[in-house]
Formats: sequence, structure tokens, C-alpha cells
Amino acid sequence: MSQPRPSLAELEAGVPFADRHIGPRPAELDRMLETIGLSSLEQLADRALPPSIRDSGTVTTSIPAAASETEMLAELRLLAARNTVTVPMIGLGYSGTVTPPVILRNVLENPAWYTAYTPYQPEISQGRLEALLAFQTTVADLTGLPVAGASLLDEATAAAEAMTMLRRAGKAKSPRFVVDADTLPQTIEVLRTRAEPLGIELVVTDLGAGLPVGEFFGLLLSYPGASGRIVDPSALIETAHERGALVAVAADLLGLTLLTPPGELGADAAVGTTQRFGVPLGFGGPHAGYLAVREEFSRQLPGRLVGVSRDADGNPALRLALQTREQHIRREKATSNICTAQVLLAVVAACYAIYHGPEGLTRIARRTHRMASVLAGGLRAGGVEIVHDAFFDTVVARVPDAGKVADAAHAAGIAVRRISATELGLACSELTTVAHLEALFAAFGVQADVAALDEATEDALPAGLVRTSEFLTHPTFHDHRSETSLMRWLRRLADADLALDRTMIPLGSCTMKLNAAAEMEPITWPEFADLHPFAPDRDTEGTREMIAQLERWLAELTGYAAVSVQPNAGSQGELAGLLAIEAYHRSRGDAQRDVCLIPSSAHGTNAASAVMAGMRVVVVATDAEGNVDLDDLRAKIAQHADSLAALMITYPSTHGVYETEVRAVCDAVHEAGGQVYVDGANLNALVGLARPGAFGGDVSHLNLHKTFCIPHGGGGPGVGPVAVAEHLAPFLPGRGVVGAVSAAPFGSPGVLPISWAYIRMMGVDGLRRATLTAVAAANYVAARLGEHYPVLYAGRDGAVAHECILDLRGITKESGVTVDDVAKRLADYGLHAPTMSFPVAGTLMVEPTESEDLAEIDRFVDAMIGIRAEIARVQAGEWPVEDNPLRGAPHTAASLVDKWDHPYSRDLAAYPTGSTPGVHDRKVWPPVRRIDQAHGDRNLVCSCPPIEAYSS
Amino acid sequence: MSQPRPSLAELEAGVPFADRHIGPRPAELDRMLETIGLSSLEQLADRALPPSIRDSGTVTTSIPAAASETEMLAELRLLAARNTVTVPMIGLGYSGTVTPPVILRNVLENPAWYTAYTPYQPEISQGRLEALLAFQTTVADLTGLPVAGASLLDEATAAAEAMTMLRRAGKAKSPRFVVDADTLPQTIEVLRTRAEPLGIELVVTDLGAGLPVGEFFGLLLSYPGASGRIVDPSALIETAHERGALVAVAADLLGLTLLTPPGELGADAAVGTTQRFGVPLGFGGPHAGYLAVREEFSRQLPGRLVGVSRDADGNPALRLALQTREQHIRREKATSNICTAQVLLAVVAACYAIYHGPEGLTRIARRTHRMASVLAGGLRAGGVEIVHDAFFDTVVARVPDAGKVADAAHAAGIAVRRISATELGLACSELTTVAHLEALFAAFGVQADVAALDEATEDALPAGLVRTSEFLTHPTFHDHRSETSLMRWLRRLADADLALDRTMIPLGSCTMKLNAAAEMEPITWPEFADLHPFAPDRDTEGTREMIAQLERWLAELTGYAAVSVQPNAGSQGELAGLLAIEAYHRSRGDAQRDVCLIPSSAHGTNAASAVMAGMRVVVVATDAEGNVDLDDLRAKIAQHADSLAALMITYPSTHGVYETEVRAVCDAVHEAGGQVYVDGANLNALVGLARPGAFGGDVSHLNLHKTFCIPHGGGGPGVGPVAVAEHLAPFLPGRGVVGAVSAAPFGSPGVLPISWAYIRMMGVDGLRRATLTAVAAANYVAARLGEHYPVLYAGRDGAVAHECILDLRGITKESGVTVDDVAKRLADYGLHAPTMSFPVAGTLMVEPTESEDLAEIDRFVDAMIGIRAEIARVQAGEWPVEDNPLRGAPHTAASLVDKWDHPYSRDLAAYPTGSTPGVHDRKVWPPVRRIDQAHGDRNLVCSCPPIEAYSS
Repeated sequence: MSQPRPSLAELEAGVPFADRHIGPRPAELDRMLETIGLSSLEQLADRALPPSIRDSGTVTTSIPAAASETEMLAELRLLAARNTVTVPMIGLGYSGTVTPPVILRNVLENPAWYTAYTPYQPEISQGRLEALLAFQTTVADLTGLPVAGASLLDEATAAAEAMTMLRRAGKAKSPRFVVDADTLPQTIEVLRTRAEPLGIELVVTDLGAGLPVGEFFGLLLSYPGASGRIVDPSALIETAHERGALVAVAADLLGLTLLTPPGELGADAAVGTTQRFGVPLGFGGPHAGYLAVREEFSRQLPGRLVGVSRDADGNPALRLALQTREQHIRREKATSNICTAQVLLAVVAACYAIYHGPEGLTRIARRTHRMASVLAGGLRAGGVEIVHDAFFDTVVARVPDAGKVADAAHAAGIAVRRISATELGLACSELTTVAHLEALFAAFGVQADVAALDEATEDALPAGLVRTSEFLTHPTFHDHRSETSLMRWLRRLADADLALDRTMIPLGSCTMKLNAAAEMEPITWPEFADLHPFAPDRDTEGTREMIAQLERWLAELTGYAAVSVQPNAGSQGELAGLLAIEAYHRSRGDAQRDVCLIPSSAHGTNAASAVMAGMRVVVVATDAEGNVDLDDLRAKIAQHADSLAALMITYPSTHGVYETEVRAVCDAVHEAGGQVYVDGANLNALVGLARPGAFGGDVSHLNLHKTFCIPHGGGGPGVGPVAVAEHLAPFLPGRGVVGAVSAAPFGSPGVLPISWAYIRMMGVDGLRRATLTAVAAANYVAARLGEHYPVLYAGRDGAVAHECILDLRGITKESGVTVDDVAKRLADYGLHAPTMSFPVAGTLMVEPTESEDLAEIDRFVDAMIGIRAEIARVQAGEWPVEDNPLRGAPHTAASLVDKWDHPYSRDLAAYPTGSTPGVHDRKVWPPVRRIDQAHGDRNLVCSCPPIEAYSS
Repeated sequence: MSQPRPSLAELEAGVPFADRHIGPRPAELDRMLETIGLSSLEQLADRALPPSIRDSGTVTTSIPAAASETEMLAELRLLAARNTVTVPMIGLGYSGTVTPPVILRNVLENPAWYTAYTPYQPEISQGRLEALLAFQTTVADLTGLPVAGASLLDEATAAAEAMTMLRRAGKAKSPRFVVDADTLPQTIEVLRTRAEPLGIELVVTDLGAGLPVGEFFGLLLSYPGASGRIVDPSALIETAHERGALVAVAADLLGLTLLTPPGELGADAAVGTTQRFGVPLGFGGPHAGYLAVREEFSRQLPGRLVGVSRDADGNPALRLALQTREQHIRREKATSNICTAQVLLAVVAACYAIYHGPEGLTRIARRTHRMASVLAGGLRAGGVEIVHDAFFDTVVARVPDAGKVADAAHAAGIAVRRISATELGLACSELTTVAHLEALFAAFGVQADVAALDEATEDALPAGLVRTSEFLTHPTFHDHRSETSLMRWLRRLADADLALDRTMIPLGSCTMKLNAAAEMEPITWPEFADLHPFAPDRDTEGTREMIAQLERWLAELTGYAAVSVQPNAGSQGELAGLLAIEAYHRSRGDAQRDVCLIPSSAHGTNAASAVMAGMRVVVVATDAEGNVDLDDLRAKIAQHADSLAALMITYPSTHGVYETEVRAVCDAVHEAGGQVYVDGANLNALVGLARPGAFGGDVSHLNLHKTFCIPHGGGGPGVGPVAVAEHLAPFLPGRGVVGAVSAAPFGSPGVLPISWAYIRMMGVDGLRRATLTAVAAANYVAARLGEHYPVLYAGRDGAVAHECILDLRGITKESGVTVDDVAKRLADYGLHAPTMSFPVAGTLMVEPTESEDLAEIDRFVDAMIGIRAEIARVQAGEWPVEDNPLRGAPHTAASLVDKWDHPYSRDLAAYPTGSTPGVHDRKVWPPVRRIDQAHGDRNLVCSCPPIEAYSS
């Protein structure tokens, strides 16, 4: 250890965070490079990347040099200190709430929950599926509508999804959709954004005067309204139905503990947010939106739906139901582009409902309502005009100078809503206290005795709308009232799932890399977590500065001029990008440009987003290597020359290959007057090496939950910023020309500190090293597995990018063993399966990422080789195709201890690589066996089944 | 749900935290009470508690009404805001350090780690045993001494344990122990406290002049000294050895990466702290102290020692080694009263060593040293006198006005040590930056260019003491450099253990109740976590106010006049209490009073503490019901009338019974001039119902880690405040008469927010309800299990207190099935065993606590009934005594999938109550089978074994 003395500055720098984020040690990396026949990462960069797109390294102007964890946290604390947390009484769909500490710690701060992926492998996802089922049950019970999805992105997009669902579910031919004028303004804005490209005519009207004349296919009511007012919607619903329209109701889930639920009032659907069920405000998100529908629309529901089925042993087991339907993302026939949910936040909301139970929720609602009632009573008694008589939590007060009162309230630490120069909105919540009421009375200059007012003031719920039906009667909502019990339930659920804290998740196209603790810590700091999205600017300086920095850094890394973080999922980023292109063409008088070229290998979402943006999808062929077929591209361009709006291309391609001709592709589109949309899903193979904005892209969306370390949360939150070149900057969402695509101005700012921290700690050099390491890892996997499974596509010199596709089609044909069998068998190894059958059916796509060290990559590779040997035994006839360790996988512990009549041993079933005693054993037991998808779809059950179903 | 309208105030109060802390719901409690033949908790109080001690309810003056979690956290945030976190350069054994966020989140903030108990059931504790083995290896490697214990309470008490160990291990007859004057002042103070009662004569001397004349049995050197100075200790060690003495070295563990380790310099033992290995300062603790010794002293080592053994299948397995020795607590023959460790903090320190590895630690040490060297160089160049030439991290500077410079540094955010009016200590650490050096130069009024100084300044380590030997060569210290890898290693370890997050831990006398997330959150807030124990008072106002409130509340709840939180373990509280009694007698001229009466049923620690306090232990008999035998007590009092110092009595008794005659017992002792020490270990059966200080106690220690919710941390931290009546208040530790018993003035303040929060959220009513619920639960268990296992002791009307003893001796005699078999079989049920063979061999003591709901208590009871049925089958001859599910327990998964030749089925072995599919399955698999204790003790291995040992 006696080397030349390092300088003090070098010593002070310490171990760079990049060395913690990146898995392989230098010696391991050398071994990996050796296996692929290279000697350095630079050589790899030279080999894999087409020189035409390699970057000259001009990407370092705004991004500071890498900070240590300590330095980053100190800097972020300074930004946090520039925020002011006030009591949130602004309302508008965002309410104060208490995240019970047991949920905060054991879910939001627990990698077992937040690092999990979407439950596409249900056998190792039963925990979060169970939590999501409780979420669905909560929404279904409270709304009185039997089928609720596993969450949507926010209330506004949920309303938009409801709008399009009603359109396709109903029989009316009219393109008109009527919207209650007393709907949340951000919901109306998103509806407008979404309606226009689809040719839906939005009629926003005051329903006090009744329904508008003329036909319409659907109606959205608010219950209560944005103003807090409650109007009995029954008559409107009945009339709308009589006129052939379907009805959705935007409802406050907490209010529904006291109010007759939409389902009982005749509504066809209900939408809203579950934020006030314990989810931090986070300056606007992420929160779980909801959508519930009548039974008959269950197969029309966009987004994910968890359902009950059974496993190979006949035991109840959960999985995503109607998956063939999920894909409403049926490319150009798509009816929605939603492909993710807000799982982590839905889990929090479900836990909140479980922990409080029906009586607890009712009590919180009652408290909230009484606070509002007494507030209204006191103001009225003090001579202040209260605009509405019936309300749940929000009171509108009319005063001569609203600004003055708002300022006085703010000085007392309370933020209220300024509706106009003379009107203020005052929204109560679980956080409202008598002291807050007193402070408000003082701000209004009103004398009031709260206890006396409480005596004197009646409730303000309309008598005819008082809820009488029961809800949350399932034992799940009654068994976990003590913290100990809830903590153990959460642990049990987490133990049923395989997340990044136990295994690599080599899902191609998903970039399951480290979500570092230092990145995660700040998101639960009150200064970030407790900001209302419409808080006055002076209270949110720190967060806005953080967002501005992040947008700048992202723009720089991608070679674009401007970024908007508003889209709260990749799909929304895509939509925003396409809308920008459309608006750009329109601004140049090119409104006829509506054709979107999409290669056949693209993500289904691309086509779905194009449809949502009102474009016509034209598919471009790919060649045998998986690259865009340039001839076909040129032909399609020629065919649609005048109407060419855009090309959407993923780079590296969804085949995991750096296409060499990407510049030529972009040039061809530009020459024809089209715009190039570079899908940023695979950006983890580019950062620091090449920039889409520099090699031909006009717009990209990024997936912060892939490349920039926001955890997948078990299936959300995702964040999908849109990045654009200079000429498209005016068309970013919510900046005047194109409307908002998300409810909150900045989408999901609550999780943006994660990406900020990641970039801040990596610096450009660290990011570049991460990219190259990820590419090296994929090439290493391809090199080691190539002799066992054909690798489907490769680019220059046979190199793949950051992922590789293993082709099992031949193997399946010869042996009968399917990709499904392989995926499930990996669970017996304690490993998560790669992406199955995307982008090519019958294949597995592997993305190891830079965060996995060589030992873990080798564990996966060795498992795949072991599985190949098992397949060979099936091929050789040693085991029948219907009874072998692959088809039998996954094996639960219970299935092994009972009678055993298989041609392979228990030992082999459970421990394909042999058991290791003690803590060194990495065996993880799947809680259920192979799940029967079809059974569940035939017998759809989407809320908590009676507990007896589980007794063995 | 239409009940009479609750008032706004009631609604605002919400669900009391007590309803979350307490497990059983009202209906469940009713069923429990019904089973024991009662109708209310009040009736239970009347029945179980002797009226003579029942409290009149005067305990509510200082404790505020219960706050909600939100209110409590808000109040604590205000207190936290009154602290000022500065850069800690005070030194004195406490250094700035970075807790890597991955360790913070996955250990310190993870209930799987912090709620675990001491690993007395090693088969379900392999995870923390593995981490502790890494801790021992870290200490052993760095000190160059082969055997290191699993941690001690802090550096000062470790030095005291070393002192007494050297005395009994060596051959010298002299009572003199020589201590380097340049030793940490708090260490010297604790040595004095501990030496005096044992008749050890402490000779504190400047060793610059050589060793003192005359005989001495031991020597303590500091390396480096408290002043930072490094002196080569080799010659002193050699001379001491020649003169027949043994030598301990207090060494800085980080410094030992650069300095020749004590073991190589000839030392017999090394002591110190591991705080700077990533453990937050916490205003003084908790931190893990260490003690390492030469091989030949391994059986003399006080405290816990983890060792490698093997399980029933011959696989390596860990457990506490030489357990017969842990009991150095051999009652009146005790050589130490240490019975806990600082496991949670030792785990953090081990993780820090694993994450950084030898090269990382060396780099941190080098950085620290270079900062100090450059600091010294710059000050010297600026004309400031630097007192020592050789140092590791601490520089002493001589200036005309030390106060002025310290103030200037403080104004720049840096806290330095004021040694005297003209001397300042400046201690560098992992946190020190060049910016800090520049701020210090400015504070000294010195111009300096750090880069130039770095060039010009040589290292300040003595050339002859540069370390050349390797350390931490084991793969464990090399395999987890990436965050992903460390996170997974931590998860794997946690999964091997059974903690409160997966099962009740019904350990009698241990009070394993909920450690609520809201209580735990604040301890990692920087304002509490990052305070140096010797920071100026103006920086620590908030924490000191919190401590003062907590001391007041504890005094009130126990009926005493004053409390000191200094003792950082129950054992230290006992010692402090006895020293107070001793000092009190001495102050009254009663120095001859040295007899301590202890009932035969007492905790071993009681007698050990009495011995440590220099008292003579006289055992008092207990009668058949387990109560103190009043006749024998009176006889013993009469026999020792003039020399009676104290009686130590546990209340309720260690038999879990409220003795009816406790007042008579206390009166008898008082009449004879003795003092009554009421051991507060069982305070969870008293809070809110009776107060030891009110029914006869003069002094008690409390266990905040039992009754007041500090988690057990897998075997520490414990906190053992001492509470005394008015006349003993002057004799609390560190208040002038009696010296300190812990290194830090307030012991382990870092975890005190937990107990503060608990009391603040429960209020007196909640605490009382918790107590009665705990008693109800124990009586329910006794009632349900009584017909299956005899309940050994009971008090009035057959009631037990908060725990009950199940007597298996008859069953064992008839069946051959032992308590061990039952305990291990419970692991197959996924349950943690009760306390085994304490206080009576061959029994199990069950303490369900108030936090377990009825479902969990019934799960335990049903398991015990199921086990009784299995025992019956052994008794009936159906299964041989050597081959049945009990003797075979616990069963690992691996043991079930291979060949099977037992007379019971695999299914029964694994799933005694049947398996439940899906996430509802609570099966937990022990990672190893029954561990062979004797094998490990015969072949002592106490550091990480080569990894090959684990290959199957």
C-alpha cells in the first residue's frame, strides 16, 4: 500500500459515487472486455457506436463535476431550505394528508417495494399484486362501481381516459363530450389537449342551467365540484342516459365515505385521485389516479387491472387480468397509450385504507367536513359571504379584497386558493386543526369561538346524498389496525416479491439499475414532499430551481434546446412530443401533415401515442438485422410526402442495436419536411456518447425511471420528460400553444430529486462510464450465452448495444420448451426473467445494466446455461415435455414437501445449482406456482376475494 | 355509521397513537379478558396488583396529554431546530464520519435489523451473527490481536473491562493499574469509577518520564494519545512485560490502517471505539466499543463473542461462543456485569469496513492524516506553535487566546477543542475538507495556500510505526464495493433472521414490543445524529432540553426525584445505582455497609453489579411461590445488620409475579438502615399502575430498550437510566461525588428521542393502558396454555404479571423432549422462542407484551399446543426420542428436498400447521439446522472463516 502520495485534493475527492453505482470493479470489467475480445471501454465505444453519431464531447457546459453523496445531499438541503412548507388549504384536487410513518418507512423508504418492476412475472409479484387488489377494492367500494383499475397517472389523465372509454363503450355517434364547468381547471385543460387530436368536441358548461342541447356521447360531472360545491348529480345522470350518453363522475374518494357513491347514483364510471389517502403532495405528484367502471365496461378499461386466478396447484393467485386487453395499446388500433400505473403510490393509498379501515376513513372525512362546516359557519357569522351551501371540504368565501386575506393567512402559515380578486377557496383536510380555523378567522378579521360554532353549526352535506351503504367490509381492511400488524403484513407482501434488493432484473428495454439510497433519501424530506402544486411561487423556489437545473442538464445530455418534465410517464412524453410536432406543422401552415412513420419493431406505445395525437400510423419495415429498411422508408416517405408529419424511431433500436444508418434515416425524413421523434427509452446506451438532438432528432422523450434512476416502484411512478430542439420549444406542453398533458404543472416533481441527485453525483464522466459499462455488460452476456442461445440481432462488428435478444424459437420448436418455461424456471434460481417476447415473440431480451457486478451477471448467465442443459434433457427425451423442471416451474416450497411423482428430484426442482447453507443461500421461494392466465380472464374477479379462498 | 355527532375536538384528536401501539382491538381484549374470567382491564388491575402498591394517580403533573404522531414529530422538529450542527473537530474519541446512505437506509432505518433480539437463538440469527463476525474480524485485523469480542458499550467501559480482565488474566499481585496521562479524560474518569470499588489503585502518570516505580498488574497506553500525539509504545510494553504486568492499548481503529497495530507491538489487549466507522455521533452514543486480546485470553474476554460452529447437517453455522463464559456474570463470582453489546452499531461499523474495504479505509485514513499534517504545516508556517510532531488526526496548537480562535472557528461553523486558555485541539476526520482547513487558517489569522502546503508538508506518522501488515484480506471485505451488492448482502442477512417485523418475540423479561416508525424517524435527523458530545452548550440546546424532559417524565413515572440517562446499558444503570447507595452510606459515615442482599431468583446481573460495586453479595431464599422468603430475609438482615448496604429486588419478580409483600420487604430493609434497589427490568408491568419510588425503592434502573421502546437492535443498544429518591440525587453518576459510568455525559442520547416520542404519544393514560394490556396478554397465555404446560408461579388469585413461566421439567422427564427442542421447533412454525431456562432451568418464560394482537398471540399459543401434541406422540412411543420433529428442528428447506428417512413426513417437518398458499403463507425458513455448541467451543474460530467452508 505504499504508492506515490496522492494529493490532498485527490484524497478529498474520495471514492466517486460512480464507483458505487457501477457494479463491476476494474478487474471484473477487464475480464468482461476480454470475453468480448476488447481491451478497454474506449475500444468498445469505437466498435459499437457508429462514428457518425459519436459525440465530440461538448456536453459538459452546464453539468457540474461529480459530487460525493455528502456534497450532493448538502447541496440539495440548501435547495430544500429555499422551500417554505405551509398548511395546504388550496384544494384543487390536492389535499393535506398524513402518511402514516409505518407506511412511509416500510413502503416509500423500503427498496423491497420501490425497486420492484411491473408485475409481469406474477408468480414473483404476489405481494404488490395483493396490495393493488386492495387498492382496486378500495376504489370500487368507495365509488360503488365494481371494477376499478390498478391506478392511472393522475386525476386529469384518468378523466381523459374515461372520456375516450365512454366514447368507444357507448352507442352515441356524436363527437361531443360535455364537461361540468365546475371541474378542476387542470382536468379541463388536459381533456382539451386530449380531445382535440381525437376529434372530440369538448363542451364545458355550467350544468346549473341543465344539459346543453344537441347530441353528446358522454358527460363528466364533478362531485364535489372544483369550487367544493356539491350538487346532486342523479337527475343529470338520468337525463344523459335517456339521451344516449354515458356518464363519468369525478369524485373525491374521501368524501365518498360520507356521500352516496357515483355507482349508486347511476354513473357509468368514476375518476379521481387517491392522493389524499396518505400520499405526499410532492408539489403535484406522483399520485395514483383512479378509474372505476360498471361491470359491463371492464373489458374497455384502459391501464392495468389486477385479477384473481389460480396456480398450477389450484391455489388462488393474482396476476394482471385481461392482458390481451391491456393492450388497448394495439399499435395503430390503440385506444389508449397508457402502459404504466402509479403502483408505489397506489400501494401507499391501499395501505392507508387498510390501516384506517372504513371507520377510520369515515372519521377522517367527518373531521374534514366538520372543519369546513365550522369554518363556513364562523365566517358567515362574522359577516363573510359563503358562496355555496352544500360542500364536503372546501368553502368559497367572498370578500372585498381576497389578496389581503390570502396574505394574512399566508403570514399565519396557511396557503389558500385565490379564485379571483374577491373570492377565496379554503379547502380542509386531515391536517386541518382548530388552530388553523382560528388563524383563518383572524385572517378574515372575524371573531369566532370554535367550540360554540361547533355546537351551532350543522353539517353541509345534502341530506339526500348521505351514504348509507357499507364499504371496505373485507377482512383485509379490518385486520391491521395496530402498527405491528401492518408492518408484518407489509413485510410478508414484500417477501413474496423479487425486487432489485434480491436479484438482478435483466429486463430488456426496462433498464433496472441501482436506485441509490442517497438519491431516494431526499424525496421524503418534508421540504420536497409537502409542497402543494399550486402553492405561491415564493414558497417553492428551491424545488423550481432544482427542476430548472434538471431540465437544463437533461437538455444538455440529449442535445436538445429545451426540456419539460411535465409528462408523468413515458407515454405522456411521447404524446407531448408528437403534439409539439403537430403544432409546429400547424404553425407553418402544414396542418395536413398527419402521417407518422413507425418501424415495425417499435414499442407498441409509439403507435398508440401517434393515434392519441390524431396521426395516421404508417408502418415501415425492418430488415433481417432488425434495422429500419431504408428502401421501404424512402418508399413510404415518397408515398406520403405531403402529409409526412414525423418518423418515430427508437435509438438504439428496440432490438438493442445501434443502427448505423440513423443519420441517413433522419436526413431522409427531414428532407421530406418531416420531424424526427427519437424515442429515448434506450437512452442508457447513449448518455455521454451520443445525443439524439445532435444526430437528427427534433424531439425525444426520456424515461427518468430507466436511465435516470427513478425506481420502477413495482410498476410506477414513471417520469417521461419531453426534450425538443429550439424550433419546437414554443410547443412544449402547457406553454401556451399545446395544452397540458398532466394534471400538475411539473408532473411528478416529488421524485425528481432522484434524477437530479444521480446526475449531480455521476457528472458527465461518470454517466459516460455507466453507459459504456452497460454496453460492455450486454456484450458480455451475448458473448457468453451466444453459444447456448442464438443472439438475434447485432450491429457493427457483431456488437449489441445495452441489451441483447436471445432467440428461443428454434429451441422451442425442437424441444417444446417455451420462453415462458425458461422465465418461470429462472424464478427457481432466485432470478427475475428477462423481457419475454418483446420485440420478437419467442425471444428473451436481456439488459444487465451497469449496476450489476460480474458475480451477479455470471449467476444469471450460469443459470441460463444450466437451463439450456435442462432443455437438452427434454430434447433428449429424458423428461417428457409436459413434466420436467421447466414446465413445472416455479416450484413452491409447499409443492416439494408433499407427495412427489415427477421424473426429476425435489432437490433439482428447488436447488438447480445446489443449496448453500446459512446466510449464503440465495434461495428465494416463489409463493405460488405457474398461474393460469385464462382461468382468471374467464372468471374475472378484481377485488379482494373472501379469505376462505386462501385456506389450503 | 350514524352515531351521535362527535365534537370537533374529539374528531381532531383522531386515532390515538396508543391504539396503534397496542395490539388487541377492544373486541379482542374482551375475548382475552373473558378467557381469564374478567370483564375489564380495571378488574384485572384490581386482581393482579397488590393494593398496597397501587398508585393513587398522582403521576400526571409533568407529562403532557398524548400527542399524535404528527404533533409529536412537529414538536420534536422544533427541539431539533434548537441544535446547531457544526463540523466536529473536537476529537476526544468522537470523530466526524459519513454513514453511507445504503447502510443508513438498509440497517439503521430497517426494522428487520433494528427490531431483532440478541442472537440467543442462533439458528434464526445467522444474519446478524455473520455481520458481527465481520465486526470481530475488522477489529482483530486492525488491532493485530486475534480475538475480538462482538462489541462493548463504549471506549471508556471497554478500557475498564480491559483493566479488570488484565487483573484476572495476569499473575501480578499488585492492585496498581498504570494509565497513560494522555488518555481520553472520560476514559480515565470511568476507570476511576470502576477501579475504586474493586480495590484497584489507578496510577495516572505521564509516561514520557517512563513507567512509575513499584509493582503494577497492568498498563493502559493510548495510541495516539488524547492530545493526538503518537509515541512508540514498544519499549514501554516490553518493560511492563518484564516487570510482570500486562498491557492494553487504547487505539484509534482508523489510524491502525496506517500505524503498526498494537498486537504487533506486543500488546496483550486493545480497546477503543468503532464510532468513526460510519456511526453517527449522536451527541455521544450509542457506538460500539471494542476489546481485542491475544489468543490465550480468549476465555477471559468479557461480553459477547461470536464463533463458528456447525449445524446438525455438518454445515458451518454461527453462534455466541463460550456461552458458559458469557457468564463471567456468575452471580457473586462475577468478573464483569456486561451482558449486552452494541450490535446495531457494530453492524454499521462492520458494513462500513466491508463497503470501503482495506484500500478504502486506508484512503480515508490517509486523507484524514494529510488534512491534519497540512493543517499543522500551515499553522506552523504562520507562526503558530504546534505542540506535537507525531500525530495521526489531531493537532494541538498553542496560541495567546484560545477562546478567541475557537470563537472564530465556531463562527465559521467548526467546533474545536479548547484544551486550556492557550491550547486548542483540532481533530481531522473523514469530513474534513480543504475548505475547513482554510476556515481554520482564517480563524488563526494565518495566511496559507493549501495546495502549496500539501506539496511542502511531510506526513507526521513516526517512520518506525508505519504499518506493513495486511488486513481485511477476507473476501467479505472485497466483494461488496457496489451499492447494489452491499444492499443485497444486507437483505440476505436480514432474511436469515427472525425479528419483530415477521413474528412476535415472546421473550420473558425482554419486553419485545413495537418500536414505532414515528419513534425511530427522528434518530437519523442530522440535528440529533450529528452532534458531538462535547459540542458547546449553545449548539446542543434542543437535545439537552429533550433529555431534561425525558428525565423528568421518567422520574415521574417511577416515583423518584431524579434520573440520569448516562448509563448506556441496564448493567451500567445497576452499577450507578449501587454506587449511589454506597456513596450515600459513606456520606453518612456508614462506610462499613457493604452487604447487598439479593434473592436467589434475581437476574445474574444484579449480583455481578454488586460485585463490581465492591459489595458482598448475600443471597436471600425464595419460597415455593417464587417470592422473597420473608423469614430468611429477616434472618439475613439480622445477621448483617451493621453492614447492610442494600437489597436488590426485581419487581414484578423475575418469576413474573407481583409479590404481595414487597412493601414489607422494603420496610424491613429500611428499618435496618439499608437501601432498597428495585430493578426496573419488569417496569412494563408497572407503568401507570405503581411506582417503585413510591412503594419503597430508593433507587432503580430502567431499561429504555424494554419498557420505553428503544429497539433491541439485534443485541444492543440498551439504555439503562438510573432513577433515585431525593436523598440519593447528589450521588448520581458524574455529578461530583460518584464518577461517570459511561464515556459520554448523557450516555447514548442518539436514541433517546425514541423514548421521548413514546411517552409523548402515549400520555399517562396510554401508558397505563399498555401496561394493563401487557398483563392481560400474559394472563391470557397462561390461561390458554395452563392445561398443556404447568404455569410455574402466580401471584394473587392465580394471576401472573406481564409474563408467565411454562414448566417443562415434568414433560422433559417423561418424554425426553427438552426446552431446547421446543424452542427450535417454534422456528419451524416461524415463531421466535420464549426465554429458555431463566429464571428456572427447564422452563420457558413467555412475555407477549401489549403490542401483539390476539391473532398473533393465538398463533403462538396454538403452536405451543401443537408442539405439546407432538411431545405426546414421542411420549406414546410413536416417534423415537432421538428422531422426531422436535429433536430434528429446526428444519431447513435444503434438508427436506434430499433423501428423507425420518419417521415423520417432510410436510409435518416444514408445515406443522399446514401450508397457506400465496402471500398469506407465513413460513420462514431457518437458514441452518440445530447448531452444535460444544463443537464450536472446542474449536474456537472467531473471525470470518474462509469462504470454502460454506460450499456445500
